[in-house]
Amino acid sequence: MSYSLLKGKRGIIFGALNEQSIAWKTAEKVVEEGAKITLTNTPIALRMGELSGLAEKLNCEIIPADATNVEDLETVFRKSMEILGGPIDFVLHSIGMSPNVRKKKTYDNLNYDFLDKTLDISAISFHKMLQTAKKMDAIADGGSVIALSYTAAQRTFFGYNDMADAKALLESIARSFGYIYGREGNVRINTISQSPTMTTAGSGVKGMDKLYDFANRMSPLGNASAEECADYCAVMFSDLTRKVTMQNLYHDGGFSSVGMSLRAMATYEKGLEEYMDEEGNIIYG
Amino acid sequence: MSYSLLKGKRGIIFGALNEQSIAWKTAEKVVEEGAKITLTNTPIALRMGELSGLAEKLNCEIIPADATNVEDLETVFRKSMEILGGPIDFVLHSIGMSPNVRKKKTYDNLNYDFLDKTLDISAISFHKMLQTAKKMDAIADGGSVIALSYTAAQRTFFGYNDMADAKALLESIARSFGYIYGREGNVRINTISQSPTMTTAGSGVKGMDKLYDFANRMSPLGNASAEECADYCAVMFSDLTRKVTMQNLYHDGGFSSVGMSLRAMATYEKGLEEYMDEEGNIIYG
Amino acid sequence: MSYSLLKGKRGIIFGALNEQSIAWKTAEKVVEEGAKITLTNTPIALRMGELSGLAEKLNCEIIPADATNVEDLETVFRKSMEILGGPIDFVLHSIGMSPNVRKKKTYDNLNYDFLDKTLDISAISFHKMLQTAKKMDAIADGGSVIALSYTAAQRTFFGYNDMADAKALLESIARSFGYIYGREGNVRINTISQSPTMTTAGSGVKGMDKLYDFANRMSPLGNASAEECADYCAVMFSDLTRKVTMQNLYHDGGFSSVGMSLRAMATYEKGLEEYMDEEGNIIYG
Amino acid sequence: MSYSLLKGKRGIIFGALNEQSIAWKTAEKVVEEGAKITLTNTPIALRMGELSGLAEKLNCEIIPADATNVEDLETVFRKSMEILGGPIDFVLHSIGMSPNVRKKKTYDNLNYDFLDKTLDISAISFHKMLQTAKKMDAIADGGSVIALSYTAAQRTFFGYNDMADAKALLESIARSFGYIYGREGNVRINTISQSPTMTTAGSGVKGMDKLYDFANRMSPLGNASAEECADYCAVMFSDLTRKVTMQNLYHDGGFSSVGMSLRAMATYEKGLEEYMDEEGNIIYG
Repeated sequence: MSYSLLKGKRGIIFGALNEQSIAWKTAEKVVEEGAKITLTNTPIALRMGELSGLAEKLNCEIIPADATNVEDLETVFRKSMEILGGPIDFVLHSIGMSPNVRKKKTYDNLNYDFLDKTLDISAISFHKMLQTAKKMDAIADGGSVIALSYTAAQRTFFGYNDMADAKALLESIARSFGYIYGREGNVRINTISQSPTMTTAGSGVKGMDKLYDFANRMSPLGNASAEECADYCAVMFSDLTRKVTMQNLYHDGGFSSVGMSLRAMATYEKGLEEYMDEEGNIIYG
Repeated sequence: MSYSLLKGKRGIIFGALNEQSIAWKTAEKVVEEGAKITLTNTPIALRMGELSGLAEKLNCEIIPADATNVEDLETVFRKSMEILGGPIDFVLHSIGMSPNVRKKKTYDNLNYDFLDKTLDISAISFHKMLQTAKKMDAIADGGSVIALSYTAAQRTFFGYNDMADAKALLESIARSFGYIYGREGNVRINTISQSPTMTTAGSGVKGMDKLYDFANRMSPLGNASAEECADYCAVMFSDLTRKVTMQNLYHDGGFSSVGMSLRAMATYEKGLEEYMDEEGNIIYG
Repeated sequence: MSYSLLKGKRGIIFGALNEQSIAWKTAEKVVEEGAKITLTNTPIALRMGELSGLAEKLNCEIIPADATNVEDLETVFRKSMEILGGPIDFVLHSIGMSPNVRKKKTYDNLNYDFLDKTLDISAISFHKMLQTAKKMDAIADGGSVIALSYTAAQRTFFGYNDMADAKALLESIARSFGYIYGREGNVRINTISQSPTMTTAGSGVKGMDKLYDFANRMSPLGNASAEECADYCAVMFSDLTRKVTMQNLYHDGGFSSVGMSLRAMATYEKGLEEYMDEEGNIIYG
Repeated sequence: MSYSLLKGKRGIIFGALNEQSIAWKTAEKVVEEGAKITLTNTPIALRMGELSGLAEKLNCEIIPADATNVEDLETVFRKSMEILGGPIDFVLHSIGMSPNVRKKKTYDNLNYDFLDKTLDISAISFHKMLQTAKKMDAIADGGSVIALSYTAAQRTFFGYNDMADAKALLESIARSFGYIYGREGNVRINTISQSPTMTTAGSGVKGMDKLYDFANRMSPLGNASAEECADYCAVMFSDLTRKVTMQNLYHDGGFSSVGMSLRAMATYEKGLEEYMDEEGNIIYG
């Protein structure tokens, strides 16, 4: 169902890789809602992924760019404005990667060069994107920028490793830059804290399928899907949310506000049975 | 501008008093977006206000009800389903009043009967509304309920008095009931924490005009207006936000994430000048 | 081990019932640290519990009082000042009870008279205590007041019912009154958000033993015990924490900042095995 | 007044520069409370500051080290254990510096090499310290680690610049590592979010004197001083707070929980008068 929510708007989508990607779904959704967009990702992601298929389907152009490189970012904004015919109304930042996670370095054995990369790719790239855009005056008055985050920024999830710190930094950048870009350009900047999602990036996290299940049973509405996240991005890009800024918006079926649910506890209790003595008392470990 | 975001949806708006009311603006907006609604307020508010004019304009019915009275709430839901022809898709709770504020009882001299009234009217009424609706199975699967709140629930504002406690209770009820109604009926329940707004209720708060100015200069996007709040309600009632629940959503131009802004500090500094000695040093009080 | 942290200080402990009570442990600890105290609880609790034994051991007096009754509270403060020989330096509020929980009324089937009682006993009693003390000028300059809370005020735990709302209200009262009593009397007011604890009150919560186990495995340091909570109260009553106010202080072994721990997940996974197909894929429910 | 709270404990204090420093005051306090300590700071700070005077007074050794250098950190822990005669019970991290702030690069014109330095010095150094300690098993079971933070990690203060992001990262590291070091070594890790303090570092922040005044009038207990922060560190290092971990502890006279105070508004209103028309109506800017 389409509402023409973004009719006439120009957008840039960073980070679509394949059909599972939230950025991919968002690209489809915003075009459906009437926007014209460009797509961008790293050259290596463009080779690995299937982005050209999406570009064809949506009739839009791909601009290869490394989001940690300011010159590349300038190119993305300059070309996007040329192609789309004016300043940009919305931007999605869906970028994150940890070499420490990939190389299975645990959080108490981080490689600090890798940590620098994690932060640069997953968080500082967002600042570079915003600073570049602001210097070029590339985002239209009243524009909207979103970066995707995860609740590990607030609470520790084993195995999420230095990505938790990267997300905390990302959310801080959204606030810090949101203040300045709001004051000077009426641009709003928010992060969406999304349920665990079975994307290519998400699947890389240790024990993801079990965490996915836990989150799903904890959340009264179940986990939010990539498609639903795309819907939420669309409303946050629209003119109906123009006074929402500097926020971290939970899009998680309620997970962030649940301490323990009956459904999750039912599963937990089954596991507990192995720790019980014959009279049903828990043997605390 | 209208998007038909709520086409075919049925809603109930509690608490519209006059043209300044957020509930009034929301009623106008949701009808513009294609919804059919009923309006409700207390008999005394109906006499004071100009709700019949709105009902006429929007071609909808008014159901008088005291939101602290369970029987009245049953009537609201039963009649609304009859009039609108089916279960309710969305509800707005925009109700709040403190006899302690009205009678100028300070927070360290509260009348406890008044406090009970403040909590009953401003917070417990929300639980009564939800419990009544759930017992009657009056809210459709996937429905959305919003109550209006204020950031005094998190941080103390002098003069806001026991309304701060009422808002904290209100937000807790949204979470507690959101868990149950989400799990059992896919109904999402959120609060919107709105900028200070120059409504009839808002104007009653001590020093409101100055607080309004402070919030406005603190917020990079300025205060959110009643119209903008109505827009935000519309997207939260729509099918594009179906996995957002148990949240307190700041709609405040960024205020909640600002510690001190340059604009507010400029005003503050002018005030400070009176406290400075001849060399410009602040005389700390 | 004792440090004479509270030497010469006068305190009042509300809510000790029996040896399991946090208030009981706190009474023992603060006396060990050099304070002189009075104990108070309702007449009915005094009959049920074993408070006279504690009073004897600590050589202190018991003042029967219903904490929802302002006159009784006046008596507590007046007599305590007489007995202890001066204004009060610290107060512990460890009071909570829900008739809805006791009578097994679920959260979507609350009895509203019971809800009023839950809020009055568990939260409004704290305001009454503070307002009474302030009117009588009963708390010394630089004094410290603590109420015990639980993280259900922030996140929903199934079965915790309307006590979650009461705790949210309690924490709001701590902030609201903390502002006023800080400004006018240098009195600090905080809540301590304690791990699930196997007290008489705690044991009444549905599925408490399993929740206790879950919290214990989630918390890197394990659940905080009643004795450890007493230690924490002692430092918050001491002169070493004089600028901490209006805070909700988590004392929970880290629980509040953990999203999922390896230990809790190990148990959860065992439970999950029953939901897996032959190839180890989770069958999502 | 001393309580022997830290009798027999061994500690390391990072970051004392001169008598204004919180780390300096903390060193004095913990020694007064019975601890034996070592001091450490960068060679350049040792030249600039007056640390040798403190070391003499407290009869403790100085170990020069760059906290961003893992080898230096190994030296600090190894030598400290040798000098103090065993594993370390507590550590204070009071380190922060932004070349962007120093060079007056605004937040929308950051130098990214400077940003890397800000993050490395002010936040990643904390991870390096913890990882080094854990690998060397240098912190005793039940040990306590504190890093100093500021509320700009949650809310934007104009002029605080990239230090806000560094503090958000720092607080995230405390949580992430607190989970691991708690689980494996019963070590608790917290941050203290301190009032603006007139230290050498604090004074470098733009408009610091006015911000200090604003915070002071907002806080019902006034700003917390460096000495009071030292007191709070002492209790967090003691055995009385052994279940507090992964927390950000506000030590700010209540500032973090105040939205607007009467005292701050009085000053603000004086500033506002210049924006009023003849009838006292505010001319909104």
